[in-house]
Amino acid sequence: MKITGEMIIGQSSVWGTAGTVKAIDPAHNTELTPDFGLATEAEVDRACALAELAFDTYRETTLQQRAHFLETIATGILDLGPALIERAMVESGLPQARLEGERGRTVTQLRLFAKVVRDGHWLGVTLDAALPDRVPPRPDLRLRKIALGPVAVFGASNFPLAFSVAGGDTASALAAGCPVVVKAHGAHLGTSELVARVIQKAVADCALPEGVFSMLIGEGRKIGHDLVSHPAIKAVGFTGSRQGGLALVRAAAQRHEPIPVYAEMSSINPMFVLPAALAANAAGLAQGYVDSLTLGAGQFCTNPGLVIALDDESLQNFIDAASLALQAKAAATMLTPGIHKAYVEGVAKLSAIAGVTVQAQGQSRVGGCAAQAVLASCDGDTFLSTPALQDEIFGPASLVIRCRDAQQMLRIAQQVEGQLTVTVQALAADGGLATMLMPTLERKAGRILFNGFPTGVEVAHAMVHGGPFPSTSDSRTTSVGASAIDRFLRPVCYQAIPAALLPDALANDNPLHLARIVDGELHLPG
Amino acid sequence: MKITGEMIIGQSSVWGTAGTVKAIDPAHNTELTPDFGLATEAEVDRACALAELAFDTYRETTLQQRAHFLETIATGILDLGPALIERAMVESGLPQARLEGERGRTVTQLRLFAKVVRDGHWLGVTLDAALPDRVPPRPDLRLRKIALGPVAVFGASNFPLAFSVAGGDTASALAAGCPVVVKAHGAHLGTSELVARVIQKAVADCALPEGVFSMLIGEGRKIGHDLVSHPAIKAVGFTGSRQGGLALVRAAAQRHEPIPVYAEMSSINPMFVLPAALAANAAGLAQGYVDSLTLGAGQFCTNPGLVIALDDESLQNFIDAASLALQAKAAATMLTPGIHKAYVEGVAKLSAIAGVTVQAQGQSRVGGCAAQAVLASCDGDTFLSTPALQDEIFGPASLVIRCRDAQQMLRIAQQVEGQLTVTVQALAADGGLATMLMPTLERKAGRILFNGFPTGVEVAHAMVHGGPFPSTSDSRTTSVGASAIDRFLRPVCYQAIPAALLPDALANDNPLHLARIVDGELHLPG
Repeated sequence: MKITGEMIIGQSSVWGTAGTVKAIDPAHNTELTPDFGLATEAEVDRACALAELAFDTYRETTLQQRAHFLETIATGILDLGPALIERAMVESGLPQARLEGERGRTVTQLRLFAKVVRDGHWLGVTLDAALPDRVPPRPDLRLRKIALGPVAVFGASNFPLAFSVAGGDTASALAAGCPVVVKAHGAHLGTSELVARVIQKAVADCALPEGVFSMLIGEGRKIGHDLVSHPAIKAVGFTGSRQGGLALVRAAAQRHEPIPVYAEMSSINPMFVLPAALAANAAGLAQGYVDSLTLGAGQFCTNPGLVIALDDESLQNFIDAASLALQAKAAATMLTPGIHKAYVEGVAKLSAIAGVTVQAQGQSRVGGCAAQAVLASCDGDTFLSTPALQDEIFGPASLVIRCRDAQQMLRIAQQVEGQLTVTVQALAADGGLATMLMPTLERKAGRILFNGFPTGVEVAHAMVHGGPFPSTSDSRTTSVGASAIDRFLRPVCYQAIPAALLPDALANDNPLHLARIVDGELHLPG
Repeated sequence: MKITGEMIIGQSSVWGTAGTVKAIDPAHNTELTPDFGLATEAEVDRACALAELAFDTYRETTLQQRAHFLETIATGILDLGPALIERAMVESGLPQARLEGERGRTVTQLRLFAKVVRDGHWLGVTLDAALPDRVPPRPDLRLRKIALGPVAVFGASNFPLAFSVAGGDTASALAAGCPVVVKAHGAHLGTSELVARVIQKAVADCALPEGVFSMLIGEGRKIGHDLVSHPAIKAVGFTGSRQGGLALVRAAAQRHEPIPVYAEMSSINPMFVLPAALAANAAGLAQGYVDSLTLGAGQFCTNPGLVIALDDESLQNFIDAASLALQAKAAATMLTPGIHKAYVEGVAKLSAIAGVTVQAQGQSRVGGCAAQAVLASCDGDTFLSTPALQDEIFGPASLVIRCRDAQQMLRIAQQVEGQLTVTVQALAADGGLATMLMPTLERKAGRILFNGFPTGVEVAHAMVHGGPFPSTSDSRTTSVGASAIDRFLRPVCYQAIPAALLPDALANDNPLHLARIVDGELHLPG
């Protein structure tokens, strides 16, 4: 499949006439062909109007049709073969194995949502029978959830497949019955076009209305603002920086009709290393931590940016071992020149903070957006008195906090901002301290994990990739896992509706074989 | 129980020192005793700090404990006996039978949430087993929902019991495990104190931390802003005007950590009367409509403010019959002098709009905040070109729109703003038109009802009392019915957590007998 630089607006390929932009090879800091045309406001409007036009038809496709559509996209992505991986490698600087793994994750995710759609638990079907003899009589009441409306999706720089054009936000919105308008991320424009053409073809192959999917190209804040402000758009999915996410949150709040924004933003993913675990295996933990920290040039939302431990000999052993491990890590190409620049500046700012000691650095390499890993440390008092130490540095930099005692460790847990993840390294002997920490950790994070490392976000039913502000703009939701579909739904109650007008999901004989709450009791289909 | 004019802050009764305010008898426009003391900022802070302190303990009370607490409140409200009804009558001008019915609704609602808590579906328990042999291995993943944190509740003027101190917002927040800080509504201060003392006693009787419940008294915007801006508050429930709701939405968005606001605001509840239904029973529909319109002096969020029908002879019969029925309606006392003033102004504004004809008025009465019901009409073109005709007039005023044809009826459906309810009067012969309208109605409202009237919101599992903006600030939720609890929850994923640290809800042997999704399949307990 040839990359043309066009946008995908319904079933059309459209050359944007608001200027051009080039994709970049960050490993060589060179421009790639072809040029990409930028969207005018009219093109944003056209994509949104098509989505609006498609909505009523698309949201009432059968569960079977919608699941098949998601599976068609999954197959289409695999059918792109090596061309997709090659383009993604050049645009992102990420290695082949990582991108092949990410493609697998993207496909698994689409198939998971196909299963979720078919199961239909998300419909939340709830029936209360009429009680005509009660005083006053109770009418027949039936609840199902329906799609919110067209959704704007802003992909992430760091997952050109799994959190981008056909990533979790798109998959869950399409699963819910929402048409999607994606704004392609500038860090992987060609990759985006390839995937967008797969979805465009799946829309046609599944005989869906063309407005079900569009992909726009644009630079800077304006296109995001135009897209989020468009009256047809009813929700927003975003993965990226805190600044970028908050700009969309503000734009959405300023609309005549405010809409929900699911922005996954910044997280430094504290790791609490409890004393017995640290004493038992300082070197092993250090190696696992440094591997997690430097994976993918540290460009994960769940990168372990903070280590909290008691200041004892074991911690010194941990820092020494981590320093050695870090020094062995080669510099890795970051996703874009802008991300690399921000990383270098973030590290410089961290190093300059009074009380912070740089413990070790990874290998360096000149040019090619190469990130040199950094391990720093400070004491608990410094951390507690320096809010800037909670700023996310996107990349392979991390800070070890030497705590005076368990009380200080708890105080730090209480003071950290909201997180996607919190990790605890603990043995049975650490149980008392772990028990003391748990209530605070639950309040701080969407996912709590023990004796592992936070990078690696399983696509599963029970996953939560979300958390309190500022890790996301809406802690009530997740952007990974089956319940991501819930973000794009709202309940509707049907009262005394004639049977002929009832949606199939609510019919008496349960033709869709759904789990249902009937008069307050949950029933499985059967 | 004596009314003292004090606030309830945890287990203390506190006389607010920021000034005093009096409760009003709207039927006689007179002041009532005693005075009520207004909260200082320090008192707002004290209530919120206590709530924060209570949170971790309260959210981990057992399902049994929490259900019992809700039932204790319900019993306590009944035990207040006639004193509660008498005070509410004097403060609200509402008749005894209505308030006794509302008390029943309040008690039913608390008991419904006790059942909801015990069932535990709201925990959303989802388990994915570890797959140690997979490459890479999958860790054990377990999801449950936990309470968001302390909730600020702003009660409604028009339901001094069911949407106030112990109303749906409070009941669902307490059910979720959230401490509650209520701001008492100025329209029923004594009633609020009586109910607050019941909750305060239930907290003590159930041996819960005192911060689980507080009730503050304040005037004007400042106390609302202070309460919503307090860092301990993590969500807001509100029922009231659009202006008041949007002020809280703005305050919540301006916080360092934005929080969700569930504001139920304004709705004019269109009723589509289709031709066959109208021809068959114009007089009967007119009587039902006027009864619904004037119930409780028209002071319902679900009051039918708009009737849409084809302009034919049957519609004229409907208007004639409705006019007669309306003229027979006595003027009824409104809740407050302010609400009465706004109603009179709203009716004057409506009557002055070009193209609007006043068809009939109810009986008038001088003094005592008495509302004279109003029936007006206009043609479809006037409605479509006059946005002001969608402004809610809180009270017994309604507008009949004479549509040229079915297309204009559909256009009006498309143009109305978001609503709590949409009603359709239809016979089998209206099926074609009803089918054409349904997709639009689903997008406009939280509840669609056929051949009934929208006042009367059943407390049930399948109820939705919510809807698209501006009827609420968050269409994804409901403020009545079992799923109101979902507003105050967020998911947490527990990854590879040692069994000793797992919450009971997630334990392998399912000690709480919960429905669970295990490896993607829903299982009932037992």
